[in-house]
Amino acid sequence: MIVPLSVLEFRDRAQAYFGDRVGVVDGDRTFTYREYAERTHRLASALRRLGVGPGDRVSFITYNTHQLLEAYYGVLEAGAVLNPINIRLTPDDIAYILDHSASRVVFYHADFAPLVERIAPSLASRPTFVVLEGALAGPATHEYEALLASGSPDEPPAEVDENAVAELFYTSGTTGRPKGVALTHRALYLHGLQTAQSLGVTDADAILHVVPLFHVNGWGAPHWMTMVGGQHVMLRRFDASTLLSLVERHRISYLLAVPTIFNAVLNSPDLARHDLSSLKCVLIGGAPSSPALIRALEERLGVQAVVGYGLSETSPVLTIAWPRRHLLDVEPPEMRLARQATTGWPVPGVRVRVVAADGTDVRPDGTQLGEIVVRSNVVMDGYYLDPEATAAAMRDGWFHTGDMATIDEQGYITIKDRAKDVIISGGENISSVEIENALAEFPGLLEAAVVPAPDDTWGEVPAAIVVLKPGVSATADDVIAHCRQRLAGFKVPRRVEFRDQLPKGGTGKILKGELREPFWRGHEKRVH
Amino acid sequence: MIVPLSVLEFRDRAQAYFGDRVGVVDGDRTFTYREYAERTHRLASALRRLGVGPGDRVSFITYNTHQLLEAYYGVLEAGAVLNPINIRLTPDDIAYILDHSASRVVFYHADFAPLVERIAPSLASRPTFVVLEGALAGPATHEYEALLASGSPDEPPAEVDENAVAELFYTSGTTGRPKGVALTHRALYLHGLQTAQSLGVTDADAILHVVPLFHVNGWGAPHWMTMVGGQHVMLRRFDASTLLSLVERHRISYLLAVPTIFNAVLNSPDLARHDLSSLKCVLIGGAPSSPALIRALEERLGVQAVVGYGLSETSPVLTIAWPRRHLLDVEPPEMRLARQATTGWPVPGVRVRVVAADGTDVRPDGTQLGEIVVRSNVVMDGYYLDPEATAAAMRDGWFHTGDMATIDEQGYITIKDRAKDVIISGGENISSVEIENALAEFPGLLEAAVVPAPDDTWGEVPAAIVVLKPGVSATADDVIAHCRQRLAGFKVPRRVEFRDQLPKGGTGKILKGELREPFWRGHEKRVH
Repeated sequence: MIVPLSVLEFRDRAQAYFGDRVGVVDGDRTFTYREYAERTHRLASALRRLGVGPGDRVSFITYNTHQLLEAYYGVLEAGAVLNPINIRLTPDDIAYILDHSASRVVFYHADFAPLVERIAPSLASRPTFVVLEGALAGPATHEYEALLASGSPDEPPAEVDENAVAELFYTSGTTGRPKGVALTHRALYLHGLQTAQSLGVTDADAILHVVPLFHVNGWGAPHWMTMVGGQHVMLRRFDASTLLSLVERHRISYLLAVPTIFNAVLNSPDLARHDLSSLKCVLIGGAPSSPALIRALEERLGVQAVVGYGLSETSPVLTIAWPRRHLLDVEPPEMRLARQATTGWPVPGVRVRVVAADGTDVRPDGTQLGEIVVRSNVVMDGYYLDPEATAAAMRDGWFHTGDMATIDEQGYITIKDRAKDVIISGGENISSVEIENALAEFPGLLEAAVVPAPDDTWGEVPAAIVVLKPGVSATADDVIAHCRQRLAGFKVPRRVEFRDQLPKGGTGKILKGELREPFWRGHEKRVH
Repeated sequence: MIVPLSVLEFRDRAQAYFGDRVGVVDGDRTFTYREYAERTHRLASALRRLGVGPGDRVSFITYNTHQLLEAYYGVLEAGAVLNPINIRLTPDDIAYILDHSASRVVFYHADFAPLVERIAPSLASRPTFVVLEGALAGPATHEYEALLASGSPDEPPAEVDENAVAELFYTSGTTGRPKGVALTHRALYLHGLQTAQSLGVTDADAILHVVPLFHVNGWGAPHWMTMVGGQHVMLRRFDASTLLSLVERHRISYLLAVPTIFNAVLNSPDLARHDLSSLKCVLIGGAPSSPALIRALEERLGVQAVVGYGLSETSPVLTIAWPRRHLLDVEPPEMRLARQATTGWPVPGVRVRVVAADGTDVRPDGTQLGEIVVRSNVVMDGYYLDPEATAAAMRDGWFHTGDMATIDEQGYITIKDRAKDVIISGGENISSVEIENALAEFPGLLEAAVVPAPDDTWGEVPAAIVVLKPGVSATADDVIAHCRQRLAGFKVPRRVEFRDQLPKGGTGKILKGELREPFWRGHEKRVH
């Protein structure tokens, strides 16, 4: 019997077997899984009544709010594609995404009304706007709760095509504009099942959504946590003190976040004031970790701390740096910590290789560098409406991550560098090309290159190396002020250096490795 | 990216990430996952050289031996279909299966040489025979270890079609002859992933294969335990003392068996002499349990004991009677034991309903009786070469189990009776029709019916109600002796009663419920 793989099954299961369990907590609002499921049914119904049909895109511009968690199932039940938008992008980029995806309906939190009012008139896609937690104003023709009330909780569900796109995430890659990562039901379903298996979560678990759900899918947690009937606790804006209070109050067992966040937690003056005994596991993603951070988290939070790795293009989870459990009593504890700080090894359903330029596997000696390539159902269907970028990433049946890594004899991979021109700052992908394009408009610029520089707080920050035309003079502050007009704040170069010329290879290509090197002297890896 | 779901991935993962781990223990022989995987590669290669091609059937007649575990991947790697045969069947039934499946190669343990020699000459399919653990003799033209040595360990694998049949299990149903249950890669892959998720197994776990691997798939453990890199320990023949020794020696954490086996373990004089502290979970399958058995297992073995439910037709696991973990501190302990003794609630990926004759759901009140129907990818492709039986079982997109159950407000189902004419004795399905057909040949018989009677040791045993022609006389022993000539030992009626006539309905159909009733008086359920 072939039954289409559909993530809606996860919600249906939670509704049927955990209906009385509080599934979602967002501030003072709580929803049992029965209530949550009913709201997703109503959302689907209301969207259909707004004319949303199979395959249509529906966008959300909001924090980690319960409405976005409702969209994870409500939009899909309507047969539509959920497109959660990164609220840190510029208005220009958000407008680009809404038009590129031809979004039919845009939900936005009232806090983003000024942004939406600014971009709405120019949108070619002319979407319907729905405001969350605010009164009707500006372009919004519907208010979320009223819209939900207008929907029916029991319309019959449509059949799902497992290979239909269900979610669309725009991510910054090597080129300037965000690219839409299209993920199918099949990809998301298998990702949910295999990640739940690897994590070992149950209905006794609760997760605090620290990672925004619009960001690398918030690590897929809306799927795997719902599947097992565990509890979602929303965190709208990160600060360490709020995080610690919520962990204590809701007996949180799982935290997934970037090292920056965990460092802030460990350094919080409130740390000792909270009962964190419910924490079982913290998963560190978005950037490499160090054994020192792993050890500090384990000792001070009383958890198992492991690194996880994935990309928007892979649903996301590919690897988790679990120790081999049958060796726990055999190997020395330092080895366990060192292993948990690597990039890890694949969860079930994922095949990972580390390959040289000629496509052959590198030696598993922990030394030879190669690119991580992936073969798995969790890999995206492709970049939305971008067959060229898709073909460039998918070659010979393998998805090419652009991450350069070693692999050891136990199969643990460790990312050392990045083949693609991407800077990862505080867990956000930043395209160096996009910054270079902004710099190109600087008056008197001859040429410029942007490379990652290590940063203790953000992991990496963009550094601009600038060559001015002869006779022109400018300061670093001038360059930064110029960029601030054109780029989201987190993309603005933190360091600006002036040179007489840029180093170039035989074909005239700028040798970014050479530019990057001085920033990284004394660092073992070339990513942070 | 669409990657075909293939159970071979589980072996490849164990080979890549648990190569040094002892994966298989069979008496004094042990194999690391690297050695095990290499043997499966060699088996695949050798089968190809014997002319076995995609879709061909390959049968095994053996105990729970490491060679059968090797076949689970080696036969499939060759693109062929694994057909493990129940060694308790009669030579006649085994010959029927070999011919019905048109088996190309038959592997048999040397202990079964007399059986194979007896049936080989009459087989229409003219298979190649391979003997396990014995010298060449009789029909065998190959010896297993020599055959393996002749195969290459590194032939390139063929692409798998996820909807291709991978395993074929013959099971006794309502009609006389065994029916072949055809399971696809997709069914077995998803079954492995979702069962592993529900059980929470890791590479630190070890399972003792008490259930024969030819029997309801040994509960799918060859897939899910390999996937996580856990250890397989083979048990060739059950006796309680051997089981206890192996649990202690190999630090077994998981046991899956029928209540009969667990009762024998609890009553073993050796119980107190063994360190069973490694046991974490025992899963009770094949027959309903009682809270008393659950309690005894938990108290005396120090485990969590839960009932699991499934059928050959469903890969097998459908439900597990887990308590809701988030309620463990809230609900009284007796409630937990009572729930763990029910038939349970579905693992992820399985939808189960309990429906009345008109197809509507029964009330979730724990009282109203309906048939369990299933919609899931783990449901079989169909009965092999039997479209009529397939169509009868698969109706309106649901597989009809024939098991009659109640469902409570928490979604726990409890099997109370059986719609189909099947007796389950010591975990083995017995067709009452098959026994009735054997009885029909009894000299002087007018008519006969066979129904299940409760039995403390076997759960159920066949009881024959016999009507002789006027003037004929016979004893129960005569009838039993007659059956013993024609049926496998476990199918021979344990009880024989003589009547003047059988009760019949308006259409002349024998009212089996009425015949069954006196045996079950005082029992709450009508299955055991």
